[in-house]
Amino acid sequence: MATRLDDAQRADALAALPDWSLVENREAIARTITFKDFRHAWAFMSKVALLAEKLNHHPEWFNVWNRVDVTLATHDVGGLSELDLKMARAIDTWAP
Amino acid sequence: MATRLDDAQRADALAALPDWSLVENREAIARTITFKDFRHAWAFMSKVALLAEKLNHHPEWFNVWNRVDVTLATHDVGGLSELDLKMARAIDTWAP
Amino acid sequence: MATRLDDAQRADALAALPDWSLVENREAIARTITFKDFRHAWAFMSKVALLAEKLNHHPEWFNVWNRVDVTLATHDVGGLSELDLKMARAIDTWAP
Amino acid sequence: MATRLDDAQRADALAALPDWSLVENREAIARTITFKDFRHAWAFMSKVALLAEKLNHHPEWFNVWNRVDVTLATHDVGGLSELDLKMARAIDTWAP
Repeated sequence: MATRLDDAQRADALAALPDWSLVENREAIARTITFKDFRHAWAFMSKVALLAEKLNHHPEWFNVWNRVDVTLATHDVGGLSELDLKMARAIDTWAP
Repeated sequence: MATRLDDAQRADALAALPDWSLVENREAIARTITFKDFRHAWAFMSKVALLAEKLNHHPEWFNVWNRVDVTLATHDVGGLSELDLKMARAIDTWAP
Repeated sequence: MATRLDDAQRADALAALPDWSLVENREAIARTITFKDFRHAWAFMSKVALLAEKLNHHPEWFNVWNRVDVTLATHDVGGLSELDLKMARAIDTWAP
Repeated sequence: MATRLDDAQRADALAALPDWSLVENREAIARTITFKDFRHAWAFMSKVALLAEKLNHHPEWFNVWNRVDVTLATHDVGGLSELDLKMARAIDTWAP
């Protein structure tokens, strides 16, 4: 079961994820990633989809052509959990 | 080359697409579709992705778990074109 | 940990999976599925991919256009396990 | 419409595609690619799927976990065509 990160854990986590920022008025993190074209954006999304289903932890995401906006939060805990950090780190690995 | 639908064409097209609605303050159409789970949402998105790449006409879309919000517009013409209608009809075929 | 089905379990399982057959000279099951076109074949494969990654149990599969040949076996146990049955049942649900 | 490469064109093309080899007893080319894991294999396949649908030219391919075997031929011309070379070059770009 995921547990909600406390303030110190959240601050530490964000410091280690410089490409992500806190969403306004919500305890969630977001990152926008731009790819070469739709094909590369979609290949990235395909990797994220596989991981999301494996973790049973799905992103909120928006795509238009080569751009993907990803927002991560753990609805069950009403904030951020280790699952979001795990997902964010994997996404950083796959971003160009 | 896509051409912009005129007012009469747009009205006719929308009348034939009852699941879609005009987006406020933009010449674009949108539909929200809910699936059984992420797996089915993703399979749907995979079909749309293949068609989008084939037509070179990509949706603006948002997904969270079993829900997909699709917005269609033709940026080149500053409004709606036959490409959007083609995409919308295909999407209707694949929606549950 | 997966365990190998014994002869009786395997016979029972196959009786309940009439669309699958034993592969010659190997303890594995296989099914060929034909779709309307590549798009539908690919959407099916996308669902299977998500499940495979979730179960950490991946098919051996071949695709050409609208046809998908799937072979299932559990390499760790040198034969068939409950994981193959689970995968086969899900695939049957998604086949046309 | 695709046209069949003649012997000289085929020889030139293969010389420029060192990772591909002629299939025995068939006029087709093949390459095996190994990825880090299924996730990366699937992301690659997702890119190929988009291009295949766009070109209306689909591979014969086999996958098991991190390995993808791709065979390319143009059935309409009973051999190899420029479409196969285009696909092979794209695949080479996406292989690790």
